[in-house]
Amino acid sequence: MTRPHLFQLVRRAAAINPRGPAICDDGVATWAETLANIEAMAGRLAGAGVRPGDRVAILAANSGSYIEALFAIPRLGAIAAPLNTRLSLTEIAALIHDAGARLLLADAGSLAAAAELRAEGAVDRVLLLGSAGDGAESLAALTAAPLPPEPAADEVAFLLYTGGSTGRPKGVMHTSSALIANVHQSADVLGDTRDMRFLYVAPLFHVGALAYTVAMAMHAGANVPLPAFEPQAVLRAMERERITHVALVPTMLSRVLEAPDFERHDLASLRRIIYGASPISEALLRRAMAAFPDAQFAQSYGQTETVSICVLPPWRHVVEGPLAGKLKSAGPPAIGVDVKILADDGSEVGVDEIGEIVMTSDSLMVGYWNQPEITAETLRDGWLHTGDMGFIDQDGVVTLVDRKKDMIISGGENIYSVEVEDVLARHPAVLEYAVVGLPDPHWGERVHAVVRLRDGAAASAEELIEHCRAHLSHYKCPRSVTLAETPLPLSGAGKVLKRELRVTLAATLAST
Amino acid sequence: MTRPHLFQLVRRAAAINPRGPAICDDGVATWAETLANIEAMAGRLAGAGVRPGDRVAILAANSGSYIEALFAIPRLGAIAAPLNTRLSLTEIAALIHDAGARLLLADAGSLAAAAELRAEGAVDRVLLLGSAGDGAESLAALTAAPLPPEPAADEVAFLLYTGGSTGRPKGVMHTSSALIANVHQSADVLGDTRDMRFLYVAPLFHVGALAYTVAMAMHAGANVPLPAFEPQAVLRAMERERITHVALVPTMLSRVLEAPDFERHDLASLRRIIYGASPISEALLRRAMAAFPDAQFAQSYGQTETVSICVLPPWRHVVEGPLAGKLKSAGPPAIGVDVKILADDGSEVGVDEIGEIVMTSDSLMVGYWNQPEITAETLRDGWLHTGDMGFIDQDGVVTLVDRKKDMIISGGENIYSVEVEDVLARHPAVLEYAVVGLPDPHWGERVHAVVRLRDGAAASAEELIEHCRAHLSHYKCPRSVTLAETPLPLSGAGKVLKRELRVTLAATLAST
Repeated sequence: MTRPHLFQLVRRAAAINPRGPAICDDGVATWAETLANIEAMAGRLAGAGVRPGDRVAILAANSGSYIEALFAIPRLGAIAAPLNTRLSLTEIAALIHDAGARLLLADAGSLAAAAELRAEGAVDRVLLLGSAGDGAESLAALTAAPLPPEPAADEVAFLLYTGGSTGRPKGVMHTSSALIANVHQSADVLGDTRDMRFLYVAPLFHVGALAYTVAMAMHAGANVPLPAFEPQAVLRAMERERITHVALVPTMLSRVLEAPDFERHDLASLRRIIYGASPISEALLRRAMAAFPDAQFAQSYGQTETVSICVLPPWRHVVEGPLAGKLKSAGPPAIGVDVKILADDGSEVGVDEIGEIVMTSDSLMVGYWNQPEITAETLRDGWLHTGDMGFIDQDGVVTLVDRKKDMIISGGENIYSVEVEDVLARHPAVLEYAVVGLPDPHWGERVHAVVRLRDGAAASAEELIEHCRAHLSHYKCPRSVTLAETPLPLSGAGKVLKRELRVTLAATLAST
Repeated sequence: MTRPHLFQLVRRAAAINPRGPAICDDGVATWAETLANIEAMAGRLAGAGVRPGDRVAILAANSGSYIEALFAIPRLGAIAAPLNTRLSLTEIAALIHDAGARLLLADAGSLAAAAELRAEGAVDRVLLLGSAGDGAESLAALTAAPLPPEPAADEVAFLLYTGGSTGRPKGVMHTSSALIANVHQSADVLGDTRDMRFLYVAPLFHVGALAYTVAMAMHAGANVPLPAFEPQAVLRAMERERITHVALVPTMLSRVLEAPDFERHDLASLRRIIYGASPISEALLRRAMAAFPDAQFAQSYGQTETVSICVLPPWRHVVEGPLAGKLKSAGPPAIGVDVKILADDGSEVGVDEIGEIVMTSDSLMVGYWNQPEITAETLRDGWLHTGDMGFIDQDGVVTLVDRKKDMIISGGENIYSVEVEDVLARHPAVLEYAVVGLPDPHWGERVHAVVRLRDGAAASAEELIEHCRAHLSHYKCPRSVTLAETPLPLSGAGKVLKRELRVTLAATLAST
C-alpha cells in the first residue's frame, strides 16, 4: 500500500484537469500551470539549500504564492511552518526559534518585520514570496536545483503553531497522510466536489484554512485567497469569483451578515457555507440560514491537533423531523473518527453526561515538535485529549459545552461560558459577546460578560443581566458586564481571545 | 494516527444512525441491530475456536448473514475467505487447501457441497449461515465467547481468490485499511452518500461487490443482497426496495435492459448505476443511458489486487462539450492513485501510446497469500502490474484496450479483442459477443468471434464479418464466427470467460 503524498494530489489535479482554474489571485493559474509553479518554487528552494527535514517559516497574508509554498516545501520533504502574522515580533521570533527555521518566506506586507527578524539573527535568510519588493531577495529570482525524489506520505509536512495557550509555543506536527485523511473523513463538509471554487477568508496559517488547500488539490478545484478578513471584501469576492464554498468562523459570519450592503450582492453561486472553530449561537445560525436561503450549511468541529472531529452536515441543519434539534451540536463523529467522553478520573461517562472529549482517527497529529512531555500528556494510548468539554447524546451526536479552561467554577458549580453567551446572543442589541470568569473572593470565580452592541442599538448592563435571568438559572447569569466600544480581540482562527480579555479586564479592574 | 478498522465503521454507523436500515433481506435489520448481530456472530465464531489470523472460508449466495460474516470474521482479527460458488468441488477444495481454512461457513444452498468437502477432509467443520438447515450445525446456535480487542487496521481481513487464470489459485490479501482507502479514493462513484440503498447483484465473493459493504458501513446506508443474478429479480428488487445505487457488469446490464417487462417497473429511486469489471461497448452504454434517463452513470475500473484504479464520474458521461468523447474510457485515475503505462521493456510510454497499465495507491493488496514469487512479479517497487493494456490521453484519462493475455497477435499485428467486440455490439441482431484468438498455422493466431443473437433476430456469420469490415481494418476482422445458442459462460464477476470459450472452441474444432 502506498499512501499518496500531498504533492501527488497536485500532480493528479494537473493530469485530470490541466486547463481548469487552480489559483485565482491576481490572475488565474490553471492546474497545469500551478503544478509547474510549485515544482519551480520547490526547485528554487532546493537551490537555496533547503533539504529534507528542514523547517521553512512563512510570514505572509493569504495569496496564491502562499498556497504554492504550502505544497512546494513538503514536495522537498521539508516542513512548512506558516506563522501567525498577528503576533508580535518577539512572539514570532520565539516560534522561529522553536521550529529551528533558518529560512523565512515573507510577502511585501511582512517584509519590514522579516528584515528585523533577520537583523536580530532570528533567521539567516529572508526570501520574498510573490512579486518583487523593495530591496528584498526574491524567491522567484533564484536558480533552481534538481528536485529530490518525492517524499513518503508519513513524513512531517507542516508545523502548525497553536495559539490561545500561555507558556512555550506548541508546534503541531502533521503529515501528508493526516491532512489527506482529514479531507476523506470530513467529506460531508464539502458535499458535491465538482468544480469547487473555495474562498479563503481565515488565514492560511490556521489548519481550518490550510485543510482546504488539500481538499482543492484532491478535487482539482479552484483556490481563491483573500489577504485579510473584511466583510465587504468577502462579499465582493464571493460575487466576483462565483465562490461555491467558503469556511467562516461564527464571528466572521456575523460580521458578514452585518455588512451594510449585504443585500446588494448576488451570492447565488454559493453552495456550501462551512462554519466552525468555535461554537455558534443558535440565533446566529438561524439568521445566517435565512440570509443565505440557497446555500447549504455544514459545520466542522476540530482542533489543530486533530483536524476534523465532528461534522454536522446540511441534512442535520433542520428544525423539523427526527434529525431536528441538533443545530447547536458539533454533529456526529466524522468518518473513521472515534470519540469518547471522559470524566476527571479518566472513566468513560454515560449518554448525555458532560466530560472531556477525547478522540482518535487517522488525521491525528504526530505530536508536538520537540516536546515529548506535552505530547504524552495530550496523546495517551493513541487518544487525543482535546481540552474541550462536551457530551454525546443517544443519537451519537456530540455537543460541546465549553473549553475546559473557559469553564467557570463559581460557588462550586460548573458554568459553561458558551451557554451564557448563547443567551446573550439572542438579545437584539447584542453584536459580539464573550463570557469569562473573573476572580472573586467569595465565589472563587464570578461570571462576567463583555458585550459589544450593534450600531445604533442601546442596552444597559442591568438590562442584559435581566435578559440572562429570564433564560438561565440565577447562578449562571453574569454578575457584571463590560460594554466594549471596539470589536472584541480575535485569534487568527477568528475566535474571541478570552485570555486577552481576561488580562485587559484584570488591568482595568486593578486601575479602578 | 489511528487508521480505523472495518468494524469501527459499523460501530459508528450504529452510533449515528441506530434506527436506520442496515440490511434488508428477509426482514429489515437496523444499524443498531446489525452491530449487535455482528458482535454476536463474532462471539460465536470465537466460541467455535476462531483465533486472530485464522482463515474462515465462506461458501454461500448473497444474504444478510453473509454481509454480517464479512465484518464478524475480521472483527476477531481472523481472515474471511469468501469463495466462488460456481467453481467445481475440486476447485473449491483447492482454494480451501490453499487458504488453510479449517472452518467453512455455508448456506442452505451450498450445504450439500460443504458436507462433501468435510467428508473428503477438506475442512474440519461446517457451520450453517442463516436459517437452520437439514441436520447441519448452525452458527446461530453456538455459545459465544468474549471478543478479543479490536484488531489493527493493517491486519489482513480478506483473502479474495482471483478467477480467470490457470494454475495455482491466487489469494489476494486485503486489509481493512486498503478497503477503506478504496471507498475514499473512488468517492466519485457514489456521489451523494446520504440514505443510500445498495443492491448487490454481483456475488459478495467478488471485490466489486464486497467493496460496497464497506461503503455502506462508512455512510450508514442500507445493504440489499440479491442471492443470484436474474434480470427480472433485479428489476423487482430495484422497485420494491427503492434502490438508490446498483453496481452491474456490462453483461448483466445488457440482460437487465433486455428483460421483457423492463418498461413496467418504476425505477425512479435509482440515483447511480455503477458499471465496471470489463470494458463496456459504447452502444450498450448509450442504450442504458436512454433506458434509465433519471439515473446517473459512473464507471469503476479495477482489479481484485488494486480495487479501484480509475473512475469515470457522471459528469464525464456526456456526448457534448469539452469532457465528451470519453464514454468508452476507464476515466481518470481515482483520488490518490498513480497510473503509468509501460512498454514491454519497462520504460514509460508517451501520451496516447499503448502499454501495460501499472498503478500504485493506498488500496493495493498486501500480496498473494503464501506466494512471494508471484507477488514480487506483480508488485514491483510498490507498483502493481495489472496485465491490462491501455493508454493515457492528454486529459489524463485512461483507456483500456484489452487484457494483455486476450490481445490477439495475428500476422505480427496486435489486435485488441475489445475493439472488435465493440463493433460487433453495434450490430442490431447481436446480444452477446466475445472475440478470441485461435491458433492458426499461417497467421500465428486468427480472430474468431462467438456471438449470441437476440431472440427472434437473424444474422449469418458472413453478414457479421461484413459488418466488421465496414468499421474496422481488414486484418482486425473475424475470420470465423460461432453462433451460440445459449448464454456465453460468465465468471463470478460477470465477465465472459474467454479461457473457457477457447477450450470449448478447441474441442469443437478438433472434433470437426
